Amino acid sequence: MITRRSFLSMAGASALARPAFAFRSAQSAAPTIDAARLRNRLERLSTHGRPFGGTFADGVNRVAYSVADLTARAWVIDEIKGMDVVPRLDAAGNIFARFGGQPNQPAILVGSHIDSVPTGGNFDGDLGTFAAFEVIQAIQKAKIQTRHPIEMAVWAHEESTAFGIGTAASRIVAGDLQAGDMDKVWNGMKRSDAIRRIAGNPDQIETAIRGKGTWHSYVELHIEQGGTLDQARIPIGIVEGIVAIHRYDVVIVGQVNHAGTTPMNERHDAMVAAAALTLGVNEIATRRQGRQVGTVGRIEIEPNSPNVIPGRATLSVEFRDLSEQVLRELGDALKARGAAIAQGTGTTITVELASTNVPAMATSGVQAAIGRAAEAAGLKTMRLPSGAGHDAQQIAKIAPMGMIFVPSVGGISHSPKELTTWEDCARGADVLLRTVLELDQRDSV
Amino acid sequence: MITRRSFLSMAGASALARPAFAFRSAQSAAPTIDAARLRNRLERLSTHGRPFGGTFADGVNRVAYSVADLTARAWVIDEIKGMDVVPRLDAAGNIFARFGGQPNQPAILVGSHIDSVPTGGNFDGDLGTFAAFEVIQAIQKAKIQTRHPIEMAVWAHEESTAFGIGTAASRIVAGDLQAGDMDKVWNGMKRSDAIRRIAGNPDQIETAIRGKGTWHSYVELHIEQGGTLDQARIPIGIVEGIVAIHRYDVVIVGQVNHAGTTPMNERHDAMVAAAALTLGVNEIATRRQGRQVGTVGRIEIEPNSPNVIPGRATLSVEFRDLSEQVLRELGDALKARGAAIAQGTGTTITVELASTNVPAMATSGVQAAIGRAAEAAGLKTMRLPSGAGHDAQQIAKIAPMGMIFVPSVGGISHSPKELTTWEDCARGADVLLRTVLELDQRDSV
Repeated sequence: MITRRSFLSMAGASALARPAFAFRSAQSAAPTIDAARLRNRLERLSTHGRPFGGTFADGVNRVAYSVADLTARAWVIDEIKGMDVVPRLDAAGNIFARFGGQPNQPAILVGSHIDSVPTGGNFDGDLGTFAAFEVIQAIQKAKIQTRHPIEMAVWAHEESTAFGIGTAASRIVAGDLQAGDMDKVWNGMKRSDAIRRIAGNPDQIETAIRGKGTWHSYVELHIEQGGTLDQARIPIGIVEGIVAIHRYDVVIVGQVNHAGTTPMNERHDAMVAAAALTLGVNEIATRRQGRQVGTVGRIEIEPNSPNVIPGRATLSVEFRDLSEQVLRELGDALKARGAAIAQGTGTTITVELASTNVPAMATSGVQAAIGRAAEAAGLKTMRLPSGAGHDAQQIAKIAPMGMIFVPSVGGISHSPKELTTWEDCARGADVLLRTVLELDQRDSV
Repeated sequence: MITRRSFLSMAGASALARPAFAFRSAQSAAPTIDAARLRNRLERLSTHGRPFGGTFADGVNRVAYSVADLTARAWVIDEIKGMDVVPRLDAAGNIFARFGGQPNQPAILVGSHIDSVPTGGNFDGDLGTFAAFEVIQAIQKAKIQTRHPIEMAVWAHEESTAFGIGTAASRIVAGDLQAGDMDKVWNGMKRSDAIRRIAGNPDQIETAIRGKGTWHSYVELHIEQGGTLDQARIPIGIVEGIVAIHRYDVVIVGQVNHAGTTPMNERHDAMVAAAALTLGVNEIATRRQGRQVGTVGRIEIEPNSPNVIPGRATLSVEFRDLSEQVLRELGDALKARGAAIAQGTGTTITVELASTNVPAMATSGVQAAIGRAAEAAGLKTMRLPSGAGHDAQQIAKIAPMGMIFVPSVGGISHSPKELTTWEDCARGADVLLRTVLELDQRDSV
């Protein structure tokens, strides 16, 4: 747990002895990111959707298409204009801007998002967005002529709070656009109207789709959102890929009965069956080697009264892993466990695959470039999967992809307590810059 | 499961070869109950609160103080007047009527209730109420002079749907009346106003309290509401007592976290802990000999989202048994299990006794009288506890008490599917009549 006091003391921790990045006062011929400017932008963005009367540490509510999202986007577009590059909106509402490079070369893309979950923190997406600003500004300032244009993206609507879909805008760019998508309604708002709110163009939404070859590569800096780097005290994570999620809807039907008059051996208790299945999911996810995870995050029982034996339970079960083969095996184990529990408890259990996606593997050449960049910066690295979804997952379908993770203190995310130290923010932006310059030296990865 | 078709065929099953009771066409010098009249009254009562357009098999909604309860009470009072006895209301709204006996003798009390749960059946309480009618009418018709007056009671508000308390009106009669009780509010209605609706007198509510010695004894016929008699194919249950309930509120605090980014071994998953505790309750209740039961009937988890590790779970746990010693041991085992699970899952678990009551033992003399009555009627009996609460539980505090159970088909109750065959209804009423006549021969039990 991070108290307000410890949050502030961590955020204000003194700079390390040998910083791999330069503060504003430092000057150098080599391109460097400006850690103070990065922090300043993160702090200014945090006011868009800040709880009334709160501070930076009180987090943010900047759900996609909200007023806070609109004012933040307007401010971000102004900031881009201040960099002397031209912002461009696509039909899905994604913001792009590119700088330099030879005209016949595909751009190296960097970026992230600025929308948040309803009670979110001030690092998720925001860091990768402003680190992309730093990459362009560092190259501008050092007057380096890159072979490839450097392009930045601020993806619209990454979080899964609206229309039930995460990475909604980068998903369109990668070509995932279904008939009727624009007519879906969330919170009383049609998706086409939502996209109009952020100055997108739902009537020509297909123009947002970009093909393979559009970009040389895509690199996204992001906070880890888990505690692996923080626990290991390693500043840079090289993402191996973004896990796939297999989500199951489980319905258990027993028999409602009087909790006083029904002997234990005559019960068909849906809650007991749900409990056994929950422990089953935990055991299935932990009994094998690997970093797969399994979660029962939602349960509803009926009638949910202290003196009535539950007759029905519905649960959400999800498994995540980089390997589809592992995910299939976990799903098979879940179904087998469900069948055994049904028999043992006198209930019926149906296990249905509700949604599934494919893992997005990070391109090995981009991973290698991140590794070289971190090594040049004198920073230790660790390879790890991303358990959360990211825009990079979508762009991986059309371009070589890589992700850089920096530590989340205590592994906390999607919470006002989400925290990455300013030093780690700057280290991450520095590695992103170095990675882009590494990638620029190669025709393809 | 009982379909409409099977319900009707069971309800219309032909009479047994040797009925222990007489249908209306039969005539006898010995007192007998009138099975057709009993059925007729149950069917007529069922129209008060019947779902619109429904039939007897569609059950009833006759919650205490509802319009259906009011019209049913008015009709029941009319029926009592038709028996040529004088109905009397006490300040709590209980309806009494007495017949015969010597003036210096305490009355033998019989009766039950006519209010229902929101989607209830047509036997719970109703059967015992009209069986009491039959006892008086049989004695009247046979022109028997009993030593003790025979008194019948229709208890107001037995079900726990109003003001969160069951057996609310008989509870007052037994002396359980707290300051402020009349000011409690349920469903926008003060309890004093609720009692006024049924023609009680909340301003003199204490006049409803009756002391020890008021009644010679109390006998209540009721459907079992469990499946023990039905499974054993035994028509008469002799209740040993009404179990006590120890109810616990359990709060489990873990840590909310991202279901994708948090490795299995770093989780503090409140749902996993709740599942382990639920199986623990089941095991604690079943691992020892006896008829104790344990139930987790209610669970709420937060935030209850498929992709978030639950950070908090609240559960209701209840144990029921005739022995307070057993209940204490079950509670101790629950607390110990909670502590072990908390340690194993990295959560904190608090287990608090939320409510408790004392078991109400049936008086051995009344049990014996029921046994002799059933034997005389040629009916097999079984002794069993009552897992559900009853008015008899309250009256046991001030008078020798006994209860007669008849089978519930499939053990189903508090449901439109609640069913006791007409033959079993008549058998129960017959045993009630015989029991009253047995008790009448004794000065005290």
